[in-house]
Amino acid sequence: MKPIQVGLLGIGTVGGGVFAVLERNQEEIQRRAGRGIHIHTVADLNVSRAKELVQGRAQVVADARTVIADPEIDIVIELIGGYGIAKDLVMEAIAAGKHVVTANKALIAVHGNAIFAAAHEKGVMVAFEAAVAGGIPIIKALREGLSANRIEWIAGIVNGTTNFILSEMRDKGLDFATVLKEAQRLGYAEADPTFDIEGIDAAHKVSIMSAIAFGIPMQFEQAHIEGITQLSAIDIRYAEQLGYRIKLLGITKRTPAGIELRVHPTLIPAKRLIANVEGAMNAVQVFGDAVGTTLYYGKGAGSEPTASAVIADLVDVTRLMTADPDNRVPHLAFQPEAMQNLPILPMSEITSSYYLRLCVADQAGVLAEITKILASHHVSIDALIQKEALEGERQTDLVMLTHATKEKNMLAAIQEIQCLPTVMADVVKLRLENLS
Amino acid sequence: MKPIQVGLLGIGTVGGGVFAVLERNQEEIQRRAGRGIHIHTVADLNVSRAKELVQGRAQVVADARTVIADPEIDIVIELIGGYGIAKDLVMEAIAAGKHVVTANKALIAVHGNAIFAAAHEKGVMVAFEAAVAGGIPIIKALREGLSANRIEWIAGIVNGTTNFILSEMRDKGLDFATVLKEAQRLGYAEADPTFDIEGIDAAHKVSIMSAIAFGIPMQFEQAHIEGITQLSAIDIRYAEQLGYRIKLLGITKRTPAGIELRVHPTLIPAKRLIANVEGAMNAVQVFGDAVGTTLYYGKGAGSEPTASAVIADLVDVTRLMTADPDNRVPHLAFQPEAMQNLPILPMSEITSSYYLRLCVADQAGVLAEITKILASHHVSIDALIQKEALEGERQTDLVMLTHATKEKNMLAAIQEIQCLPTVMADVVKLRLENLS
Repeated sequence: MKPIQVGLLGIGTVGGGVFAVLERNQEEIQRRAGRGIHIHTVADLNVSRAKELVQGRAQVVADARTVIADPEIDIVIELIGGYGIAKDLVMEAIAAGKHVVTANKALIAVHGNAIFAAAHEKGVMVAFEAAVAGGIPIIKALREGLSANRIEWIAGIVNGTTNFILSEMRDKGLDFATVLKEAQRLGYAEADPTFDIEGIDAAHKVSIMSAIAFGIPMQFEQAHIEGITQLSAIDIRYAEQLGYRIKLLGITKRTPAGIELRVHPTLIPAKRLIANVEGAMNAVQVFGDAVGTTLYYGKGAGSEPTASAVIADLVDVTRLMTADPDNRVPHLAFQPEAMQNLPILPMSEITSSYYLRLCVADQAGVLAEITKILASHHVSIDALIQKEALEGERQTDLVMLTHATKEKNMLAAIQEIQCLPTVMADVVKLRLENLS
Repeated sequence: MKPIQVGLLGIGTVGGGVFAVLERNQEEIQRRAGRGIHIHTVADLNVSRAKELVQGRAQVVADARTVIADPEIDIVIELIGGYGIAKDLVMEAIAAGKHVVTANKALIAVHGNAIFAAAHEKGVMVAFEAAVAGGIPIIKALREGLSANRIEWIAGIVNGTTNFILSEMRDKGLDFATVLKEAQRLGYAEADPTFDIEGIDAAHKVSIMSAIAFGIPMQFEQAHIEGITQLSAIDIRYAEQLGYRIKLLGITKRTPAGIELRVHPTLIPAKRLIANVEGAMNAVQVFGDAVGTTLYYGKGAGSEPTASAVIADLVDVTRLMTADPDNRVPHLAFQPEAMQNLPILPMSEITSSYYLRLCVADQAGVLAEITKILASHHVSIDALIQKEALEGERQTDLVMLTHATKEKNMLAAIQEIQCLPTVMADVVKLRLENLS
């Protein structure tokens, strides 16, 4: 059978990986797919660099639209990134009747609904395994592997940069700024690390998983996003003493009132497998009502791990190209007409346990006052560390873990506690998830 | 669209789970699959118990052949187990043009080649996600999620009973026999635990994964199988001191000379994620050339976790039923005509690192003699513990880890060491995998 002809838009780090892996494993992939997969044309603004990479084994053009217009090409891979030109090109490719494979999480998270609607109408597939957790086949697991389940929640370490930084902060007891510099030096963090360290990248990914897990439209704009820039080394240490690790988690949960969708630093019990995911690795924990907990672990970024997911999508699309569109796996796991419009809950309405660190005056009655306020807001304490004040110091740290409560209760209690004259600094509040 | 009609052969623990989950998540599953999935008839020898379970919501018959002969039924689920009658029924179902879903690892490992050949000829699908690692979608990950990769090796904790026993032995410092009794009391081990503790169940599963990973026929009969019955608590302790955990791993590796396929207790670095898989949980680590390490974790057994995999297969089969058979995912991941006949290596030819424990006379020169023998067989030492002899004792333990070597070298060295008059007991040898 004639090989599938692929157009590749953008041959940077990931595109180079796709090209290299397709070449190297050509035979292996064809033995699986039953059909060759051939990069027909590469479009990249840097034509000379692209030509050097492909060494005459594919056509190289500067204009992506040449690829989209080429009737020879069956599938277009979008690896440009961002949601400016990438969006236009994906929409044009769909309109031209091409199937699309993309690794672009920002694009899918922000414009996924429009893209999938257009693809559905045109009867083409848009595959995006590489958009979440790189080489880990988590989209496939959620859409197909767990299709028997009512998925209850997902919690994922889906940003390698921040997980690397948090691992280093814990291991070496260093503060955020120092480790960030080190991560930049090692290439684990970009020159402008905002998207990673502020949690935006993780929010893109968890928004995509949320839609697939619950059969709801993509709602990235409703996600609550906190990064790790405010995190202190001291809180990592206290968490450790209490048997917890702090990870930047993307969390989405089904509750009777609606869907929780949030990214923030989170304490998790050190004995959970996901708490032991170190360095730049990714892992996603999924809880389904039938299967219970499952976890998927691997490299979330990098040239060849991401290429692994892009090519798996190519093979899938190749297989399903001739199938009746109604029998393909729906883009967001659920049939378009069976999507639900569950609301994303505002943060005040989410339920969580909390870690609090208070700098308090070292005097009698302080703890009594604080616990009274907490109780009045229905917040109950699960664990507590009160340090002896250092000699000569008149203040000390009070660290507590609470049982689960509504965020609005917690905030109201903190506001009141903050006003106590015996509380000497801003109360530090982190969320805690048990993940059992 | 008319719901898919399913015949269920055997409504025991897993069958009951399939029935319950399909009922409970009916709406969710239909929203995904685009079509209802309905258990039309249940066949079970215990008709009255089956009737009680299904409560009139499906027909109940005693004779499985009634189900196979029923033209209304599209898919047959085989949950009888074993490879006697189960094999006959699966072959008959295929001959009758039914698609088959099974959780039967023994059947697939032992008779998979014949079953898939028959299914291929007849143009029907035989799905078996539930046969390996229960609810973890590992077959899907290997066949589809990692299709871009040349898979290099797989190492899996794929038997919950033995992992529970090993976790307990380590946690509580108890010996095998004591923990086995406890596991039987708690329902983690069966009255006759042979298949589990002797490694046979794990070998079924790793044989299946090996075929899928490397595009070779199922070769269970070539697997090397050692269980955990000979494992001493003392070796778990020494391993711990050296920074390792002992797990019963199913291992399969691609080497230039052929395929390694083996099940045995294995030391793995304690810092690896898979070393921290505790209790009855399962996990499979897969190394692909593009993606690097990935890991899949979850419940490997039990009613609803296994049902989760069976139903995911039902959804997949439902989707692909109308597709051109050539475009379906091949049973063993590779197109039947593209399978290779790579040999399974005899154990003497595999490469591994080793843990050795020697009970030696507490006298000068012993270590020199032993290390000389090892060196003469090209075995080099990576780490060593020599205990001071207890007061009044004339012997002591010598524990070593070696670098990687051929098993035949290791065996020759051990044979020679065993003859030394200063070696007071049988040398204990365990294999060690770095899994990095």
